[in-house]
This record gives sequence, C-alpha cells and structure tokens, in this order.
Amino acid sequence: MSTTPGTDFPLSLNTGTTPRLTLREAVEATAAAGLEQIGVWRHRVEEVGTERAARIITEAGLTVSSLCRGGFLTATGEAERAAALESNRAAIREAAELGTRNLIMVVGGLPSAAHVLGAEGDREDRDLLAARQRVADGIEALVPYAAEHDVCLVLEPLHPMYAAERAVLSTLGQALDLAAPYPARTVGVVVDTFHVWWDPQLQQQVARAGQEGRLASYQVCDFNLPIAADALLSRGMMGDGHVDFATISGWVAEAGYRGPVEVEIFNADIHAQPADRTLATMTERYQRLVLPALRSRAGHPAGVG
Amino acid sequence: MSTTPGTDFPLSLNTGTTPRLTLREAVEATAAAGLEQIGVWRHRVEEVGTERAARIITEAGLTVSSLCRGGFLTATGEAERAAALESNRAAIREAAELGTRNLIMVVGGLPSAAHVLGAEGDREDRDLLAARQRVADGIEALVPYAAEHDVCLVLEPLHPMYAAERAVLSTLGQALDLAAPYPARTVGVVVDTFHVWWDPQLQQQVARAGQEGRLASYQVCDFNLPIAADALLSRGMMGDGHVDFATISGWVAEAGYRGPVEVEIFNADIHAQPADRTLATMTERYQRLVLPALRSRAGHPAGVG
Repeated sequence: MSTTPGTDFPLSLNTGTTPRLTLREAVEATAAAGLEQIGVWRHRVEEVGTERAARIITEAGLTVSSLCRGGFLTATGEAERAAALESNRAAIREAAELGTRNLIMVVGGLPSAAHVLGAEGDREDRDLLAARQRVADGIEALVPYAAEHDVCLVLEPLHPMYAAERAVLSTLGQALDLAAPYPARTVGVVVDTFHVWWDPQLQQQVARAGQEGRLASYQVCDFNLPIAADALLSRGMMGDGHVDFATISGWVAEAGYRGPVEVEIFNADIHAQPADRTLATMTERYQRLVLPALRSRAGHPAGVG
Repeated sequence: MSTTPGTDFPLSLNTGTTPRLTLREAVEATAAAGLEQIGVWRHRVEEVGTERAARIITEAGLTVSSLCRGGFLTATGEAERAAALESNRAAIREAAELGTRNLIMVVGGLPSAAHVLGAEGDREDRDLLAARQRVADGIEALVPYAAEHDVCLVLEPLHPMYAAERAVLSTLGQALDLAAPYPARTVGVVVDTFHVWWDPQLQQQVARAGQEGRLASYQVCDFNLPIAADALLSRGMMGDGHVDFATISGWVAEAGYRGPVEVEIFNADIHAQPADRTLATMTERYQRLVLPALRSRAGHPAGVG
C-alpha cells in the first residue's frame, strides 16, 4: 500500500445532506464527527456572508471541498442570461474566498421545463441541442473570470431523469467534451455516483477524466428505488440502493483521484433525522463500502496493478 | 418528396397505450381509427392464444408492427435463467405466428432491484457489469432460434432511471455494441423517444443504427414531468412533455427508417380515458409533431440533403 490511512480520500459532508442545519451547526457537527472537510451550498454561505462563513469554517479546523453551485446557463432571454453569468461570477469569488478551487456547476435544463407548457408550447423551448450550445457559450464566457480567481468550474453531469429541468449535461463523456477547449485547472468534472452509475461508458470516461487531469471531485450517494415523489429526493445513503461503490470507487482511484469524497444526499428521511446520526452512518458506510476500494486501487493504478 | 402520403411511416397503436382493452377491442379501435398497424403485448395475445390472436388481427386488416416483449435475461440462478430463455423462445415463436419480425427485448435489471435489500445485501447483486454480461450471454443463446424463425431480437435501451430494476441496457450505442456480433436481420434496435431523447450521442448512434441496418422500430412517446409516483407511468402523449420530436424524427428518417411508428404510452390519465379519444389525440399529434419531420427528412438522407 502506497497510502497512509487518513492522508488520502478524506470524507466530506456536503451541507445538502443536513439541510436543517445552519452553516455553523453543520461545521460543528462535521468537526464533532472527526471530519476535516465540508462541501457547502451557497445559500448557507449567504446567510452569514462569505467572509464570516470562511472564518467559521477555518476556526473549526475544516477545509472546504467544494462550493455548490454555479450553472443554470440555459435561459434564452438576454436579461436572464446576463443575470446567470453575474450570479456565476459571484459564485467564483465566493469559492475563492472560501479557499476551495471547486465550484460545482449544474448547467440547467430546457426552458420548456422552467414553466408549464401544453401541446402548444414553443418548439424552441424543447431544443436540446440549442440549450447545450447556450451552456457551452456560458462556460466560455466564465472561463477567464474563473482562471483569474484560480477557481475550477467543475461540470456535473446529472442523471438523465433530470435532463429536462435541471441539467442538459447527462454523461461524463459529454462533460469532458464540453471541458476540452479549456485548461484542466479551470474546467473539470465531478463524478457523482447517483448520477452516473448506470453509464455503460463510465469506466472509460473516468479513466479519460484522470488522463486529462480533470477529475476534480468525487461524490458518493446511492440510487434508491422507488424514485421519490420529489425526484430530487431519490438519493440514498451508500448501501441502501443499487450502486456498486466498490467498482466505481476503484475506477476513480485508478484514474489518480486522491482528493476528498463528498457525501451529498437529498432524502426526506435522512434530512429529518438528527445530523449526528447521519454523520455516524455515512462515516461507517464510507469506511466499509467506499474507502477500501479507493485505498486498494490507489496502490494499483490502471495499466499497472 | 420521394414518398407518397400513407405509404411510409404508418402509425401503429401499441396495446400498452390502451391496457383496459382486450386484444379484440384494441384491434377494433385501431381499425376504426383508420390505422393499419398494431403493436401487441404478449399477455393480450396469451388471453386468446396465438393462433386466434393472429386471426383477429388479420381479419381486421391489420399488420403487427411488434410483439412486446422478450428479455429479462439478468437472473443469476440456473433455473431462473433457463426459464427466461424458454420464455423468450416462446415469444420468438409467437412473433413468427403473428407475422411480425420484431420482438422487442427489455433486457432486465439488477438482481438487487428484484427484491428488497438493505445495506447487508450481497454485493454481487449490484454488479452491473456482470448483469450486462448475462444479457450478452442470453442474446447469444437466443440468436440461432430467432434466426431459425426469421425473427429479429429488437434490443430496447431503456431510460437510465430504469437501469436498476428493468434494463441494464441504457443507451442506443450500448445496444448497437451488444448487437454487433450478430446479423442485422436477427439482432436490431428500437429508438423509443422517451428512453433516449436526453442522450448526447443520440444523433450519431441513430445514424450508426441506420448504417448497420439495425434500426428495426421507432416508438414515440413524450417525457413528462413530474416523474409519476409509479415511474413506469411517466410516459406522455406527444406534445405534452419535453421531447423535441421534429429533431429526433428527422434523424430517424435520415438514417433510412421508413417503417411503422408505434405509440406506446403508459400514463394513468391516458389509460383511464376512452380508447377512441386516445387514438384520435395520438393521430392528431403524430400528424402534427412527428410525421412532417419524418416525411421531410425522408427526402433528404444524411450526407445528401
């Protein structure tokens, strides 16, 4: 084994897993659970202001693994597009102030899904190729600003069941194609097991992300059935659903990833339970279902072990 | 225009769209609506027996566009696998007796989704790669029998939200890779808009399906939001959801497809309404949202128009 326990793959709590906690409460719960990393959502940061948020996190001895989130670049109106770019620039500044390079990008869905349309809806609102082009244009517009602040726009492919309303970016391969024109330090990708576990090209695209130096973040979360009434809440605790964490984590480690592993679970039952219980369960599941494969394969890079 | 209205792209009712009707009722409603094609589910055929089903359909002047469905090849137990193969052989015989070459194949999901598993579930039950290999093995076992009966095993990639419990085959590219070792006459693919509309590789894979002569069926159905409580019922009438039918239909026609277009909608509201209303609506939507693009692009094959 080339790794020392505890040095690689630090576990990180994403505040989306404990949405009832304020930033300070989430930071305290994370530190109390013995973790050293936290992934934060912008609304939690905004509640106290970025400077104070950074101080709360630093004073607790934590590091920010990512800021969630930028994106939503698919609006068609000029004013909406300008507002989206401005919001993303603010997010880039916030990430830099919080000391994380990773700004997670959820790119946005079809305009048709942003408001209710019947059969007479404008066809342009369903134009997936045009929506993807607007995402590409938005990324292009943001890259110089991100580079200036040394922040990485971390493109997140979302599960195809969210393609209509949240992200026209649905696969890791597509994310890497979108990132290709830009330096790896400025445009990367995140592997979130919930979103990509089903992808027949996952192994080769994770390897490609590693080769291109774009594998910026690894998020773990299970895919539960049945799909929740609010589909966004279908994410589950590792081990409760259908994801093969050992296999995917092995690919991530073989691709050279050694960074934090964030747990981001939107799930009504988990959201309702005490945060210390959530942190205890996620730590146990991580150590049992995820970390062994990461550690094992970290010693055996692809093509070697 | 190289096509005469009515000769290409005949509309077909899939009996899954009108599940309250017996086979005879569905046949009568289809003929009364002026359609000449019907896609039938096996349970409707089995209610009357294959020979009588074939007679009911033929005497009404209809042709069978497909038989739904074979597949479910992912079981791990020997007895279950043998039973699945036997069921598929029966489906192949039924397709031949009904005079359709198209046996639609829904390949099956993970064993972990077939029964409730907690965190202690067997990891092998989540092994997606092994489940896919069992599908490949099952297809290999069925190909000689299908060829002998001149029936095409039409592989259906299902939306990734069904990857756990219904089909570990999630993209058209993956279906074509699975079909590649076999003659196009014996293993083909179906494009169902609901399942594949989100795929960033859709255009190139539809073209590939055409080039390889494997584009055996085209099914239209919209992707509705929110996802239904029973996710299988999220399918919608064309125009009610987020699919861009003109673009996808154009690609299908450019790929050389000229066959029937089946409407297969699982949707509680549509299932509850009178079948003649469903047939009237689907005909109107088809003629307005789907057929113009098919006809238009049929005159302009890829690389020519």
